[in-house]
Amino acid sequence: MMTVRAVVFDVYGTLLDVHRLNEVLAAHFPGRAEELQHLWRAKQLEYTWLRSLMGRYRDFRQVTEEAFRFAAASCGLAPGDETVRSVVDAYLGLPAFPEVPGVLEALAARGRTLAVLSNGTREMLEVALRHAGLARYLSAILSVDEAGIYKPHPRVYALVPERLGVRPGDVLFVSANFWDVAGARAYGFRVVWVNRGRRVPDRLGEDPDAVVEDLAGLLELVRA
Amino acid sequence: MMTVRAVVFDVYGTLLDVHRLNEVLAAHFPGRAEELQHLWRAKQLEYTWLRSLMGRYRDFRQVTEEAFRFAAASCGLAPGDETVRSVVDAYLGLPAFPEVPGVLEALAARGRTLAVLSNGTREMLEVALRHAGLARYLSAILSVDEAGIYKPHPRVYALVPERLGVRPGDVLFVSANFWDVAGARAYGFRVVWVNRGRRVPDRLGEDPDAVVEDLAGLLELVRA
Repeated sequence: MMTVRAVVFDVYGTLLDVHRLNEVLAAHFPGRAEELQHLWRAKQLEYTWLRSLMGRYRDFRQVTEEAFRFAAASCGLAPGDETVRSVVDAYLGLPAFPEVPGVLEALAARGRTLAVLSNGTREMLEVALRHAGLARYLSAILSVDEAGIYKPHPRVYALVPERLGVRPGDVLFVSANFWDVAGARAYGFRVVWVNRGRRVPDRLGEDPDAVVEDLAGLLELVRA
Repeated sequence: MMTVRAVVFDVYGTLLDVHRLNEVLAAHFPGRAEELQHLWRAKQLEYTWLRSLMGRYRDFRQVTEEAFRFAAASCGLAPGDETVRSVVDAYLGLPAFPEVPGVLEALAARGRTLAVLSNGTREMLEVALRHAGLARYLSAILSVDEAGIYKPHPRVYALVPERLGVRPGDVLFVSANFWDVAGARAYGFRVVWVNRGRRVPDRLGEDPDAVVEDLAGLLELVRA
């Protein structure tokens, strides 16, 4: 059981299901969706880390588009601007994982402040979280854009205590991305890893305080 | 033609051929070498970027080992400590690409200062470059270890002007890794991308000054 004041969530892959992107890719590029999505996601993250280290931050919308253009070119595809826009816009219409609304409602009813902290731009996040029916549970939507650098840099996680007025030790941070778990733990949050795919943990010198299979597991950890 | 005083090389994949690792992996894990090496290399780089952003630098020997242990676990393998050591030690015995010694000799004869700047530790680099017969051509072996952070952070590239006493604009930096090319270009070097595998360039807002298929192309760019 954890005595925390605020529960802060990563968004893509944690609250929202990015597998929906596959359908959009399959509609545009039949038979190539899986290969494309794998490369797109890998490059999207890689570019956030590289641009952060190079001191050349650009927002997530731009990085997501650049990663998609690279992925398409690597697969021998040359999508037009309209196609690229429609694929990247799929980020605005991702569905929540099925258990998510009920868990957020229960945690809010237990008196916890709920928020998100994501690589997405504020606009991308607001549209997507409203579309998925989750915005109503959230006290704050925090974007790395306000820090000018991407996760897992500590300046990103520092947005949470700054904006919510809580101490790092009173924050439970929840992410499906192990590297985000490690960054949040290194910063000083208590951290839960949502391991939906039964993945092997990364070796980054930081491990989560707890591991759950989906968000429902939080209801055991954060009591009334 | 470029009027540069120093030519500085990345090492792994640029001067030394990392495909040799496949043979070592194949000897220990028959039929799994390709899958293992792909994941190992991806995680090795990912961990250097993540640890740099988290402010948790550990040297390349440790990160390489952690990445290998993750890759093995992801493939359902559980190698013992001895196997892990022998696989990671393969980094000490990588061969030079065939054209490399001749090109370094020619550039040195043309009066250029030659050096390397690599993620590897000083010890890993000294052993490997001596083994490959390249150490004799180099005025300096520079390791990110001296900066306490990995490429592509500008503090790493700043080691070159500091140690060689040249201005960034007088340095030609040569790398087979596009992200390293982008970082070096953002720092202020003139940069050549060695695109041995006819890869698609990444989209990081920085492009090389020239592209060559192997190091022999440098002899056209850096004249006597």
